[in-house]
Amino acid sequence: MTNIRKRRLSVSEYVQGILEGNRMILSRAITLVESSRPQDRRLAEQVLEEIMPHTGGSLRIGITGVPGVGKSTFLESFGLYLTGLDKSIAVLTIDPTSQKTRGSILGDKTRMEELSNDPRAYIRPSPSGKSLGGVHEKTRESMLLCEAAGFDIILIETVGVGQSEVAVEGMVDFFLLLMLAGAGDELQGIKRGIMEIADALVITKSDGDNVARSKIARRQYQNALHLFPPNKTEWYPKVLTCSSVESRGMKEIWTLIKRFEEHMKERDFFHQRRAEQNLRWLEESINCYLLEQFYQDPNIQYLYGDLKKSVSKGKLPVSAAVRKLSEAFLNR
Amino acid sequence: MTNIRKRRLSVSEYVQGILEGNRMILSRAITLVESSRPQDRRLAEQVLEEIMPHTGGSLRIGITGVPGVGKSTFLESFGLYLTGLDKSIAVLTIDPTSQKTRGSILGDKTRMEELSNDPRAYIRPSPSGKSLGGVHEKTRESMLLCEAAGFDIILIETVGVGQSEVAVEGMVDFFLLLMLAGAGDELQGIKRGIMEIADALVITKSDGDNVARSKIARRQYQNALHLFPPNKTEWYPKVLTCSSVESRGMKEIWTLIKRFEEHMKERDFFHQRRAEQNLRWLEESINCYLLEQFYQDPNIQYLYGDLKKSVSKGKLPVSAAVRKLSEAFLNR
Repeated sequence: MTNIRKRRLSVSEYVQGILEGNRMILSRAITLVESSRPQDRRLAEQVLEEIMPHTGGSLRIGITGVPGVGKSTFLESFGLYLTGLDKSIAVLTIDPTSQKTRGSILGDKTRMEELSNDPRAYIRPSPSGKSLGGVHEKTRESMLLCEAAGFDIILIETVGVGQSEVAVEGMVDFFLLLMLAGAGDELQGIKRGIMEIADALVITKSDGDNVARSKIARRQYQNALHLFPPNKTEWYPKVLTCSSVESRGMKEIWTLIKRFEEHMKERDFFHQRRAEQNLRWLEESINCYLLEQFYQDPNIQYLYGDLKKSVSKGKLPVSAAVRKLSEAFLNR
Repeated sequence: MTNIRKRRLSVSEYVQGILEGNRMILSRAITLVESSRPQDRRLAEQVLEEIMPHTGGSLRIGITGVPGVGKSTFLESFGLYLTGLDKSIAVLTIDPTSQKTRGSILGDKTRMEELSNDPRAYIRPSPSGKSLGGVHEKTRESMLLCEAAGFDIILIETVGVGQSEVAVEGMVDFFLLLMLAGAGDELQGIKRGIMEIADALVITKSDGDNVARSKIARRQYQNALHLFPPNKTEWYPKVLTCSSVESRGMKEIWTLIKRFEEHMKERDFFHQRRAEQNLRWLEESINCYLLEQFYQDPNIQYLYGDLKKSVSKGKLPVSAAVRKLSEAFLNR
């Protein structure tokens, strides 16, 4: 194990290290699953296959909100509350400013300074990525690695804009939406679909002269949520307030999450939701992979470029172009 | 041509018949493109390829609205207004009650009795269909056949719920959303995304004691539309009112559509929008076709069913299942 920092690890070294909770090896394993190099992919797959029996034991919590809502300070405050209860936590964050892993680690350690020095907490920032099937696929697999490493709770942060919320909602047990008590503009660009998939809303920055405003916002959001039809789990999303800088509201949030977990487990929805998430993930992944194979094929790219010209001008019917493309791809 | 009603037509018979505006042959050609039989598909493709140079000359108008908004009476009233201007029109409707073509024709002829007896109008109902890539693909190709047959205007109706609007918006020049002046409930379950893609809104049933209400609704919708950011075409959606039973408002709607056409042509957006629609259509079609080939492969179905069990239980990582499935499919 002397030279372990430099040399390539074997499957069993990865697996053993992860199961022992060795964070250096865990971090390297996450880097491995995030890699797109073919040799890394194969190794990552073997590691994942080995650790699968040891996954599923953590409570998975997704946290989102628009930029400026205070996700980092919330994660720090809520994370410290949880480690204070002697829970071990892994925090998977997405760094929107970086497209590369290495550059973002320091940034995130600074964002959550106290939490990153807490031995019960493990913080792992990942680049926000661009590609379809990129960031979520990796986040899911990173989550599984953290579970195998034995963390009680996994917190997954998303950047709060666009599609990533839906992806994260598809991998967590509980999905928390952070909101600001805005000055009049109560919807702040949050997509309506996001409110509908949240299991709870938390109004952040409920401190100082913002307390009254956040209470009003809480009532408004609670009323707005009543307009959505209940889903089959019969859980009605709740709205809470908190102050990350004053560390207030964290206990209530945790109590709510525990209550949700109980609610879901009593009705057998907890494991059902996970099973459904896995199947959706499989379908999205295979669809994405097949289309990737198609669009990355150099012959297809050439042919597609050619056919596009005739199709966009309305000279060639789409059905003919589809036949030519599919023949070229499937009869390779 | 004696036995033409029964026997299989050749490509050139189809093409010649369509270009001559022979409605019996046009109807058969639409049935042909709607067919999923492989031998029909090939023939349909050849027919489409031949008629492509003769397409693109019609103004394409999409019309949608929730059930009960009065789409049929609007189509009848607006259609008669247009034929009164000596325009020839093709009306492609979707019959939500039928999954088969044959059963629905009588139903729709009854729905638009006066218009269906008008020699300048051609009404073609199609079953609403179920499959992805089903109804829209066929509607688009039916539209092209009608264009080759020389109609000035094509009206395309959609059922007004769910995904079909987005598909239709992707094939028309002008997209009209019909709305009711509701009793308090101004949004009536119309998805917000639909309002955002409409080029105009028309409040229907503005007659009798409903006139005042529809004027209020018109103002409310016009205000609501101002909240959406303008798109690159710089066209601001307008709101009008109409009464189909009293045939009022049709002239204003037609004037608006003509104004829109002029606006788009002056800025070169008219043909640009069509070119973009064609490319989007190509991409959706090829994606859909490739995934169909995958999911309909019997070996894949067997393997997928097997892998699903392990994946849903969290025993097999998705990446491993994806590799197995893609190897089985691409290395056939």
